[in-house]
Amino acid sequence: MPQTSPEQLQKGVTAAEYDQRLAKVRAAMSERSLSALVVTDPANLFYLTGYNAWSFYMPQSLVVPVDGQMHLFARAMDAAGARFTAILPDDQVHGYPEELVHRRDTHPFDWITASACELGALSNDPDSTVAIEGDGHFFSARAYLALTAGVAPSRVVDSAELVNWVRVVKSEHEISQLRIAGSIAEQAMQVALKSIAVGRRQCDVAAEIMAAQAAGTLEHGGDYAALVPLLPTGEGAGTPHLTWTDQPFVEGEATTIELAGVFGRYHAPLARTVMLGEPPSLLVDTASVVREGMQAALETLVPGSTGDDVHAAFNAVIRRHGLAKESRIGYSIGIGYPPDWGERTISLRADETTVLATGMAFHVILGMWMDGWGYELSEPVVVTGAGAERLTDLPQELAIRR
Amino acid sequence: MPQTSPEQLQKGVTAAEYDQRLAKVRAAMSERSLSALVVTDPANLFYLTGYNAWSFYMPQSLVVPVDGQMHLFARAMDAAGARFTAILPDDQVHGYPEELVHRRDTHPFDWITASACELGALSNDPDSTVAIEGDGHFFSARAYLALTAGVAPSRVVDSAELVNWVRVVKSEHEISQLRIAGSIAEQAMQVALKSIAVGRRQCDVAAEIMAAQAAGTLEHGGDYAALVPLLPTGEGAGTPHLTWTDQPFVEGEATTIELAGVFGRYHAPLARTVMLGEPPSLLVDTASVVREGMQAALETLVPGSTGDDVHAAFNAVIRRHGLAKESRIGYSIGIGYPPDWGERTISLRADETTVLATGMAFHVILGMWMDGWGYELSEPVVVTGAGAERLTDLPQELAIRR
Repeated sequence: MPQTSPEQLQKGVTAAEYDQRLAKVRAAMSERSLSALVVTDPANLFYLTGYNAWSFYMPQSLVVPVDGQMHLFARAMDAAGARFTAILPDDQVHGYPEELVHRRDTHPFDWITASACELGALSNDPDSTVAIEGDGHFFSARAYLALTAGVAPSRVVDSAELVNWVRVVKSEHEISQLRIAGSIAEQAMQVALKSIAVGRRQCDVAAEIMAAQAAGTLEHGGDYAALVPLLPTGEGAGTPHLTWTDQPFVEGEATTIELAGVFGRYHAPLARTVMLGEPPSLLVDTASVVREGMQAALETLVPGSTGDDVHAAFNAVIRRHGLAKESRIGYSIGIGYPPDWGERTISLRADETTVLATGMAFHVILGMWMDGWGYELSEPVVVTGAGAERLTDLPQELAIRR
Repeated sequence: MPQTSPEQLQKGVTAAEYDQRLAKVRAAMSERSLSALVVTDPANLFYLTGYNAWSFYMPQSLVVPVDGQMHLFARAMDAAGARFTAILPDDQVHGYPEELVHRRDTHPFDWITASACELGALSNDPDSTVAIEGDGHFFSARAYLALTAGVAPSRVVDSAELVNWVRVVKSEHEISQLRIAGSIAEQAMQVALKSIAVGRRQCDVAAEIMAAQAAGTLEHGGDYAALVPLLPTGEGAGTPHLTWTDQPFVEGEATTIELAGVFGRYHAPLARTVMLGEPPSLLVDTASVVREGMQAALETLVPGSTGDDVHAAFNAVIRRHGLAKESRIGYSIGIGYPPDWGERTISLRADETTVLATGMAFHVILGMWMDGWGYELSEPVVVTGAGAERLTDLPQELAIRR
């Protein structure tokens, strides 16, 4: 196995842990008779090799054969960075030539596929099955077609988030990263709640939040978040994903704040709602109901429960108050890269049957999107034998600034 | 045609300009006998409809038939935001059900394709040809397979960045947005150059830069950038895309800073290099040569030149000093969304034959990546009849902090 670089050891991931991660991935591959896995999700690249750079806007891939050496492919100028941060020895990192960038007649994945075949990590064996990350963000249709043509007559199938599912149960190291991320999230949210005020521009509040996220704490500097801070306010607060403008916050309006604390790519997302001025009683009532619902959700978030159980526990509470929430109330978290900090695996929703286990981590997010306004309360948590461990410790009330 | 919302008019894009953009896209579609175009790049969605939200991590699409009404599809909770920001009337915005999210057995693009067929924007006509954005970031392999199956026996082809190529020549409105973005970039770079100091943590400098980017100016609040600030330093400065750490800046090391000013999604990227302490003479010499090369590049960046000409002009200068740069020295800019602010169209490189025209905009970036260190100098510019108009006005020297 490759040596772990001092850089990596310093961050706490041992060579043994990387070995275990790869072994789990290969066990899942064997079970499904996969000959090779073409990894393109930057979070999965980081998980399996430690490679971490803003290079995912260009084609790149880790090709993992079910046995034999894995190989990392990136744009030539990024291969240097890969050698700098990944655990792989230099001869398993390959840079494709710059002239392949943004061409109509050829694609980096033509080169990557041919090189991986030459190296024996992929093949044109008709009995071979290659899995791709079919719903990842950075494996385009052209990349898919180039790979498929290059390995023909091998079969290409969807990995169905194979590596993401391996990531679902966190190691002690990963949980410690999440706890640090939680401390940064808590601090950034305190800055946000203090920063919002009548007459201040949304962009100025976003500026303070982003600065708090990046600076982190004195012991642990923050990392960049997979999503920018979301601050839907006033009329826009009925829509969850509009980004900030340079308009001022207005008296009599509520703002939902969603942000993450990030450390070493691990994300602890957190949401709160703040009211500028006297809150309408409907908002106060909703906040109180949602808080009660959060307690029920967290009490159910224990080893042995399912996502369905957690969703049902929340809905049982809010139903008593005449509310209902059909969509999911949370999702698995861990390593994140733009544009999303979710793992795309377990959702806390009505028909989710995966059994929760110690070491899983979730963002429990209770977003009530009403007509023209919204209320959000969330908690990032780790599942432990003693129940759901909250990664942040802030009051769960509606914040009010009069 | 749909009414332009007050929101949009306020931002300066008139209904007539949206009409022109769509007409240009449709003219290009007709030329290539395309029946429909499935737009998934968020920058192209924004360009054609004004829709702007952090929803692109979930499948979404604007389906543009060569004639008839175009239709926008997004996750149900995001359709509300689309109605809020897009110029489309409500009956041309459609939300897919939440239960389609993250499923193995079905995909939002099954629903999108079926709905678009019902609405007449797509069809199963064997003579019909549908174009996709085959190298965009947010159209996955699964989305491609779902679309292809849903329109069969129609042919599916790559659009080859059709909308991106329409975006290459900017309107007066767009140039004014870029100028504002330039003023924000200038301010953020001044903050960055002042902020870097021996002993300060990289994350604290990133924090100040991101705050400056978001706050913008008093007149114009900043928007989020498609890339985080990149600050490769010391040993990592030989690699262009590593992101910041929480390690301190060190005496005797150079740092390259790449950031963008962003206004209303328009990006003006900017790069400078700063030396902490006495610079080695090789760095001083490289900086001087690159500055001379920048002058030659900008003098060549005029209507009638090609990207090849600009690349050659730069190389002619640096060759006299024993240097060479094979890779591209710039690319077309305008609207940007994570993870990239380039338009994926014109590159300033050796064999680029597209003729430059008034209204195009470029990031001219001269990055010299040496073994173990790097030097960067860049300028965002607009091509005008009077030459290249710089969008920022900062000294082009190596910055030195002793």
